[in-house]
Amino acid sequence: MRVLWIFAHPERHSLNGTLLDTGLRTLDTLGHEHRVSDLYAMGWKAVVDGADFPAADTGDSGRLRVGDAQEQAYRGAELSPDIRAEQEKIAWADVLVFQFPLWWFGPPAILKGWFDRVLVQGFAFGLKDADGTTLRYGAGGLTGKRALIVTSVGARESSFGPRGIHGPIDEVLFPLLHGTFWYTGMAPLAPFTVYGADRTTPEGALDTAEALSRRLRTLESEAPLAYRHEQGGDYDEDLVLRPEAAPGRSGVAAHRTDDDPERLDRTDQLPLHSAQLSLRHLPV
Amino acid sequence: MRVLWIFAHPERHSLNGTLLDTGLRTLDTLGHEHRVSDLYAMGWKAVVDGADFPAADTGDSGRLRVGDAQEQAYRGAELSPDIRAEQEKIAWADVLVFQFPLWWFGPPAILKGWFDRVLVQGFAFGLKDADGTTLRYGAGGLTGKRALIVTSVGARESSFGPRGIHGPIDEVLFPLLHGTFWYTGMAPLAPFTVYGADRTTPEGALDTAEALSRRLRTLESEAPLAYRHEQGGDYDEDLVLRPEAAPGRSGVAAHRTDDDPERLDRTDQLPLHSAQLSLRHLPV
Repeated sequence: MRVLWIFAHPERHSLNGTLLDTGLRTLDTLGHEHRVSDLYAMGWKAVVDGADFPAADTGDSGRLRVGDAQEQAYRGAELSPDIRAEQEKIAWADVLVFQFPLWWFGPPAILKGWFDRVLVQGFAFGLKDADGTTLRYGAGGLTGKRALIVTSVGARESSFGPRGIHGPIDEVLFPLLHGTFWYTGMAPLAPFTVYGADRTTPEGALDTAEALSRRLRTLESEAPLAYRHEQGGDYDEDLVLRPEAAPGRSGVAAHRTDDDPERLDRTDQLPLHSAQLSLRHLPV
Repeated sequence: MRVLWIFAHPERHSLNGTLLDTGLRTLDTLGHEHRVSDLYAMGWKAVVDGADFPAADTGDSGRLRVGDAQEQAYRGAELSPDIRAEQEKIAWADVLVFQFPLWWFGPPAILKGWFDRVLVQGFAFGLKDADGTTLRYGAGGLTGKRALIVTSVGARESSFGPRGIHGPIDEVLFPLLHGTFWYTGMAPLAPFTVYGADRTTPEGALDTAEALSRRLRTLESEAPLAYRHEQGGDYDEDLVLRPEAAPGRSGVAAHRTDDDPERLDRTDQLPLHSAQLSLRHLPV
């Protein structure tokens, strides 16, 4: 497989840098090709602005409409070269790995800007099928690819559990897992989360690196999070769940078919690819 | 009251620009003082890097630890001047308004970078009370302030409802509302969301501006989202909800005391400050 590893940490001499090295070596051993976008090292420009689409026609009003300008520049191959280079890497890849420290419960600005600038309409989303139906959620420009988050947090694992104060990690990351990966057609894998990252000992870092290495062995085979397909029959024309899908439930968790209200009783039965299980032995 | 309005849209000649103008005029009329951080106009630097804390001591290892370097520079008044200017505005304000187009279900990178760079440990969080308890979730460096999101989305309102495909807007924004505002002690108000923003007619824009103007009248008096206080007795020492709090429930919604599984039957009874109600008549 071909793996694009997007690394968004300011310090290469860090636990995250060690995990990146381990990850790339493991991919080599497994016979996977890889390319790396080290956003800090590249001096990646985070902010969407007119320089992204220098030829944009803002019309009589002179008013910039970002979405339209992005799509127009994409179709005319006039997006700035740094954006086109990332799109070329994505097109090449079978798997995208996003590695970042969780800052304010989301990706650092440099990575958020990668999504804002690279995943433009016409390339990643906004495509239509032969019937004119817009392809979204399980279908889109990035269909067939898999996406894995590798993230580090200072907090303890319990605080990101089903009833932990920070919210379950997969719900906190819903804007990425569901709203970005699944929206563009990518299969979102369960995040690999390193808890207590600020207090890691050298031994703990080794354990974490081994856990990541084990995890990468299932990159190709593991079952992704089971979000619902927009065109799979569960949603009505207003894009609302039909009464028979997740009856009586609401909220972000209702959009997964492998999530149900009984899950609190089933934590022993989490699939092996869950980072929560594989990291349970780490110091937190 | 004193209102700091953080504006994160690249185009001032837009629906969002109109809403900013309306918002500031309304605040004038109501007798509130205001200051504006127009991030694009300021050329705000989005990315955390060593230039934020030029005097940081990285120790023998030469390894940059972002959190420590931020706190150390804050305490030594050595953060870069652009960051200190924002912290001074926050200290001045009673209310923070964050206005942005929702990109990939979160704030644009320029605003994400404002949180990453400005809300540093020692200033916004990481403070302790006299007993040594860390102040978080309902307490912290920004206690006593209120925070309002004003955001625009292209999608229809139904798709962000309790069972809409994108997830309920307050759950999608949980990293901001709960993980950033409430975490630092600010009272999060219900987001003011403009749906169908890409298809707004001139009349629709006027309606939206009026709805925002009405909404701002309750800035001081309306009840914030009722998230649980970390020290309010609902959480155990592992920061997990005690069995008697939201019994049998899990997920991000369990952290609100004004949210319950019956809410699907109660949508008529939403409080008047809900943007979902006040904008119901708008074209979507």
